[in-house]
Amino acid sequence: MKNAISVTRKENYPQWYQEVITAADLAQLSPVRGCMIITPWGFALWEMIQKKLDYEIKIRDHENIYCPLFIPLSHIEKESEHIDGFAKECAVVTHCKLEKKEGKLVPASPLEEPLIVRPTSEMIIGTLFAQRIQSHRDLPVLMNQWANIVRWEMRTRMFLRTSEFLWQEGHTAHVTEKEAHEHTITMLQCYNTFCHDVLAIPVITGQKSINEKFPGAVATYTIEAIMQDNKALQMGTSHYLGQTFAKSCDIQFQDAEKNLSYVHTTSWGVTTRLIGGLIMTHGDDDGLICPPAFSPQQVVIIPFVKKDADEQAVMSYCQEIKNKLQAMTFRNEPIRVKIDTKNKKASEKKWGWVKKGVPVRVEIGHRETTEQSICYALRTEASNQKHDLALTEFCNTIPDILEQCQQTLYARAKERVTEQHCPLLETIEAVNKHFNTEQPTPALVYWRDNDPLEESLQQTHKISIRCYPDAEIFKHHIHGPCVFDAGQEGRLALIGKAY
Amino acid sequence: MKNAISVTRKENYPQWYQEVITAADLAQLSPVRGCMIITPWGFALWEMIQKKLDYEIKIRDHENIYCPLFIPLSHIEKESEHIDGFAKECAVVTHCKLEKKEGKLVPASPLEEPLIVRPTSEMIIGTLFAQRIQSHRDLPVLMNQWANIVRWEMRTRMFLRTSEFLWQEGHTAHVTEKEAHEHTITMLQCYNTFCHDVLAIPVITGQKSINEKFPGAVATYTIEAIMQDNKALQMGTSHYLGQTFAKSCDIQFQDAEKNLSYVHTTSWGVTTRLIGGLIMTHGDDDGLICPPAFSPQQVVIIPFVKKDADEQAVMSYCQEIKNKLQAMTFRNEPIRVKIDTKNKKASEKKWGWVKKGVPVRVEIGHRETTEQSICYALRTEASNQKHDLALTEFCNTIPDILEQCQQTLYARAKERVTEQHCPLLETIEAVNKHFNTEQPTPALVYWRDNDPLEESLQQTHKISIRCYPDAEIFKHHIHGPCVFDAGQEGRLALIGKAY
Repeated sequence: MKNAISVTRKENYPQWYQEVITAADLAQLSPVRGCMIITPWGFALWEMIQKKLDYEIKIRDHENIYCPLFIPLSHIEKESEHIDGFAKECAVVTHCKLEKKEGKLVPASPLEEPLIVRPTSEMIIGTLFAQRIQSHRDLPVLMNQWANIVRWEMRTRMFLRTSEFLWQEGHTAHVTEKEAHEHTITMLQCYNTFCHDVLAIPVITGQKSINEKFPGAVATYTIEAIMQDNKALQMGTSHYLGQTFAKSCDIQFQDAEKNLSYVHTTSWGVTTRLIGGLIMTHGDDDGLICPPAFSPQQVVIIPFVKKDADEQAVMSYCQEIKNKLQAMTFRNEPIRVKIDTKNKKASEKKWGWVKKGVPVRVEIGHRETTEQSICYALRTEASNQKHDLALTEFCNTIPDILEQCQQTLYARAKERVTEQHCPLLETIEAVNKHFNTEQPTPALVYWRDNDPLEESLQQTHKISIRCYPDAEIFKHHIHGPCVFDAGQEGRLALIGKAY
Repeated sequence: MKNAISVTRKENYPQWYQEVITAADLAQLSPVRGCMIITPWGFALWEMIQKKLDYEIKIRDHENIYCPLFIPLSHIEKESEHIDGFAKECAVVTHCKLEKKEGKLVPASPLEEPLIVRPTSEMIIGTLFAQRIQSHRDLPVLMNQWANIVRWEMRTRMFLRTSEFLWQEGHTAHVTEKEAHEHTITMLQCYNTFCHDVLAIPVITGQKSINEKFPGAVATYTIEAIMQDNKALQMGTSHYLGQTFAKSCDIQFQDAEKNLSYVHTTSWGVTTRLIGGLIMTHGDDDGLICPPAFSPQQVVIIPFVKKDADEQAVMSYCQEIKNKLQAMTFRNEPIRVKIDTKNKKASEKKWGWVKKGVPVRVEIGHRETTEQSICYALRTEASNQKHDLALTEFCNTIPDILEQCQQTLYARAKERVTEQHCPLLETIEAVNKHFNTEQPTPALVYWRDNDPLEESLQQTHKISIRCYPDAEIFKHHIHGPCVFDAGQEGRLALIGKAY
């Protein structure tokens, strides 16, 4: 049971990824093509993300709501750029009944109008806004919903790209362009901080190229992370939507001078894809590694007992440890600790928690019980490395131990977000050479937006413009001569392969 | 702004219900037929229900998961009684693309097999169980999910009956019938306690008649509440499913003697309908009344300030009250308190909170600020009744004040769950007379299950068997001569009109 994962990351990264998902009980395939079942440990991760991000969203004054799953076709097609962007991947409900026909159940009662299963909710939220907004005194309106989303995908990969996924979508309406644009950036920074501080994933913030922006948006901002195989992963986006949806949904307000104007709206979201990013950022050949700040359990206590007189003493010592740990806090919350009392071999339990990536494993047997000591192992270290501490000392240092694990994970990932790892390529030859290697890292180039070469890069090297990174991220000038046409000024762009 | 509700409950109960929903910002109509948008205060109620019920579900050792929205037709029809029960109300996805045809967007790319939007998840969870369960050591498996559900309804009413609704569905698998049946009752009692203690809604627990049980279940248990118009509302159900789904989904385990057996399963759920029950149990002619135990805000502080030198003093006194209240607890949680700082007239704010049903309103002006006193009103009392207390005294008694509100609401509702309110009818004449009155109360009769008369009662009086109440609820013998055929033994049944 040491390792249910049959390949290393080096041998076969995509297969390693799939096997970690199974080994850590994150998700499994379902009878529905392209849709997964999120299993207990995977869903516990999502619940932690929800809890922590929901808090951040609410302290920024957003209110949660829930909008319908279905959008009538005539309604969604009011915004043509938007529907054009989603038409190729829409699940369409056309019937509302099943009937027996020649002994076979078939769809019956065709709907007067087809319904689209929401690929996003701008158009429904737009009608809500139109009903709620009359005056400038009603603004801003700041809302959010946690929901399931369907975008029909041909090639799916669990957590990264599935036909149904879970997400959070924020939608806001503002009086001015300036305020709406600032809010777009506020929420991008909210995601940015969340990834850095909670998920221990350093992300690159920046603007998407025109080709890559959200259908209907004026500007799309992104957070991009770099996985261990050097591919980029878009971890979340925030859109300034201008007056696009205000006009299609007729969201107008009366200003102080009684003139009617359209609002400026934003939307922003992160999805269950974050869990994919987590696996590929922190996982190792033994399985997942969860950053302590959001691991559903931070410490797991595994009793090593033989069926003898000792059993009760060991179990009550485990309970004592649990109580003492729960009285301690890490980042202002009680330590999350669990005793694994399952009726299984201790070594099987141990490897179960290694694969799930719990930061600290405490192993308690006869010796520890009589000595009132703690034998513990850290998931960030080699699996055979053990430490011993007296109980009191262990409890007193557990916040530091967890913080240290968090920082270690962050530091490892941060190495991929540097000028050394993402070189600046100044010629076409350098670009071609760089992306002809095995698992090429992302790179930086100066680039003129909307260049027809964007598509050719995609075709030659399967790379795309991930974003125009914000100025503070890399120590380069933000403008320079375009890599494809030195006579033109280009903007510093992160390019690379991506999920 | 006193009252946006144009009718009293007495004048027009259904219209009053709809108007409370709008006045309290609980939900509004959407462009999708039969589907509502749950707006901020309504969703805050649902989040409180989720939080408290999720806790109860988890301490009973269930793990949360997430299953796909879609179920392939061939998969769901494996269980024929089940699909027969839902076939008439299934939303069916038949296409996965939209394409322009003669300038018009139409569904394209027909699916090889239609997908049903889940009306419940037994069949998908069944495949999950089949994959996870091999040995008796894997049992019991205890899972739960929070999800959206679609059942196509022709006549919809917000929160009570909508084509899409939100719910929690628990699914468990056990070695024995006894254990599974006990678990069915455990979860029914969990709902029962939740309704009594948190929602302050006294419910009647009992078993459903054969006609009313869940498609595929061996036995369905229900909690029924009685609304102010005397109609019953099914607030939740818990099903013992026997081996029905174990056989359709092939969920087998090896017992200690290495024999293969089918598991016994259960399922149980409550929905956003609870919010409808809340409105109709506790609401009055001014709007909603929220029981303190789960009101999203328990105390609202409304500053009554003029634009003068006082403003700052009043506002900082409000902040002081808020801080002091937050340091107090009610039922082991910090008091939930909000200062309404919106740029609106104080009287408009006051009526806004009356309609939303916040238990305690604190009104702070010049006098209270200089006297360090509190002027407060309780939502359970007449809207013009005010109380005065010194700040310290108010803070010290707030837990008692809230508990008193909770008990008052419960006591009012409890009057409808008595032998006086639900009379025992011993003859057919008495049944006919009782249900020919205006807003007839539910009644008790002795009844022989699966009687063809069940349908005739439905047709004559529009009444149904709500349940066979558990023995301890009414002070009557549980068996007696059947009301329709005194020669037969009947079981005590609650009958009445229902939502």
